[in-house]
Amino acid sequence: MVNDSFYMNLALQEAWKYQGLTYPNPAVGALIIDKNGKILSISAHKKHGTPHAELNAAKEAYLALKNDTVLQNITNPSQIHSYLLKNHNNLFKNCKIYVTLEPCNHFGSTPPCSLLLSTLGFDEVIIGSREDNPEAIGGINRLKQNGINVRYNILKEKCDSLLYPFKQWKKDRFVFFKIAVNLNGTYDTGTISSLDSRKYVHALRDKTDLLIIGGNTVRSDRPILDSRLVGGKAPDILIYSKQKEFDKSIPLFNVKNRKVFISDNFEIIRDYNYIMIEGGDNMLEATKEITNWYLFFIAPVIKKGNSLNSPISFTPLYSTMLENDMMQWFGT
Amino acid sequence: MVNDSFYMNLALQEAWKYQGLTYPNPAVGALIIDKNGKILSISAHKKHGTPHAELNAAKEAYLALKNDTVLQNITNPSQIHSYLLKNHNNLFKNCKIYVTLEPCNHFGSTPPCSLLLSTLGFDEVIIGSREDNPEAIGGINRLKQNGINVRYNILKEKCDSLLYPFKQWKKDRFVFFKIAVNLNGTYDTGTISSLDSRKYVHALRDKTDLLIIGGNTVRSDRPILDSRLVGGKAPDILIYSKQKEFDKSIPLFNVKNRKVFISDNFEIIRDYNYIMIEGGDNMLEATKEITNWYLFFIAPVIKKGNSLNSPISFTPLYSTMLENDMMQWFGT
Repeated sequence: MVNDSFYMNLALQEAWKYQGLTYPNPAVGALIIDKNGKILSISAHKKHGTPHAELNAAKEAYLALKNDTVLQNITNPSQIHSYLLKNHNNLFKNCKIYVTLEPCNHFGSTPPCSLLLSTLGFDEVIIGSREDNPEAIGGINRLKQNGINVRYNILKEKCDSLLYPFKQWKKDRFVFFKIAVNLNGTYDTGTISSLDSRKYVHALRDKTDLLIIGGNTVRSDRPILDSRLVGGKAPDILIYSKQKEFDKSIPLFNVKNRKVFISDNFEIIRDYNYIMIEGGDNMLEATKEITNWYLFFIAPVIKKGNSLNSPISFTPLYSTMLENDMMQWFGT
Repeated sequence: MVNDSFYMNLALQEAWKYQGLTYPNPAVGALIIDKNGKILSISAHKKHGTPHAELNAAKEAYLALKNDTVLQNITNPSQIHSYLLKNHNNLFKNCKIYVTLEPCNHFGSTPPCSLLLSTLGFDEVIIGSREDNPEAIGGINRLKQNGINVRYNILKEKCDSLLYPFKQWKKDRFVFFKIAVNLNGTYDTGTISSLDSRKYVHALRDKTDLLIIGGNTVRSDRPILDSRLVGGKAPDILIYSKQKEFDKSIPLFNVKNRKVFISDNFEIIRDYNYIMIEGGDNMLEATKEITNWYLFFIAPVIKKGNSLNSPISFTPLYSTMLENDMMQWFGT
């Protein structure tokens, strides 16, 4: 059935591709159909400081309708916004946009999306979750005041789930556990993940404030734990360890502008909003109480090794492929 | 980008939902867009004796355009075909259809799809894989002779992969290994799969000719190995075992119209075209040489138990969710 749920699902799938990478913004997806129901664009918010989902979708839809090399080369969100306001020429008249979250209504690093959608003259805005962030609230009202049809709560539960990390780090903190395993749960078999998976992990490290890792891994792997594969920043580190002595020539200790804590508890997480844990079975067990979500990278091989063993039940949220790996977000 | 690949991918995803269930027919998906590019339907061939993908998609598209309770209630493929030929009223004029496999050109249990698409007056037929089954070949030619635009080899590799089981069982046989595991690879922890997963497995048993199972499982689980959850037939059984003595009160021995073989080799598979293997680590190791594909049902829990250990590398082909389980088809 090609209906609201179908379109919203496509927007959701697109947004999930950037889950964890939009910090401190929420992951949001958007899809535009023209007056005849043809899909013009499916897009998402990808990174703080880059266009919101609605703006990306509007740009992509505009480029699908007009061969415009000027717009194609504009990447600055405010400039895309201005360009579309000036040049839209009623192209979006009678179009509908599906967006997983109520369009923002405040001037942040971009002008408000509610203003964009109003001025472009969309016929209808179909929304998943309502905004409850006081900074951004009011989008639906502005749209309605401008005579635009608005519906919301479409696939509400799924859209809320997409939004969960954002709500957590707004409230106090979002903590996720990243683990790479083989198909039979073994994880100590050398490099497991594909290059695309490792790049995704580095992109996550670039966004997180704090990375928690076990003392044994630090001693055995001597890691640097930066985000060199994507040219990003290195998060602060909490080494979870009873033993406080470490060889300070281990690379992670020698990264500029990084704090390294060594502790046998997790009290320091109070000072952070977005936290990644990396590790194996022991860390999985030790961090159960502080972890919101789990991110599994599963390589399609069966290999002998130590297998996960610490009993947990998960709720699958989203899965995709990165080269040959399965990447799966789980809630609990 | 909303392009040929986008539409063909949606048709592919739909077709994969019925992989293994269409025997002896191929799994095929189809998607129809109207003259303006709106998606009218996404459908698939679901089961032998029911409509081909093209006919299902045409019916669904017709119902999306016209509230027709007569057609809604017709399930017989020939009758749907006739009804559409009589009543289409040029509704499909200028529509395009994407189909993962060249439309058939022979009168089987349904009239040829190439005839259907020609008469309905589609503007263009966009095809993934070309047909090389001599019974069905000629669809593209008939379409072209009727003045319809045809393109093919769109996402050819993915469409060929969807078609692989069909090609195998046409040639000699298709053998797949079905296994249910927890997220950490353990498989001897009691009931693992969700009800939807078990129903899918029963639907597969209903279609397969032969089911191979290890002697130890037969002795310990005393299974019946039928397809009662879907009200289907019970496949013949090969018990792979060095020890030939079994307690004949084990339910699998007492199913009508079923042959049961007990052997320490796989020679009997020569007499079968569509074979499922069920088992754990030992069977995985023992059947490597005869297995084409693997079907994993992965429950989202970590549980203590015996874990898979027999080294294999897979190529992921398709994954979806059945309730909370991940279902994943792998090639090798």
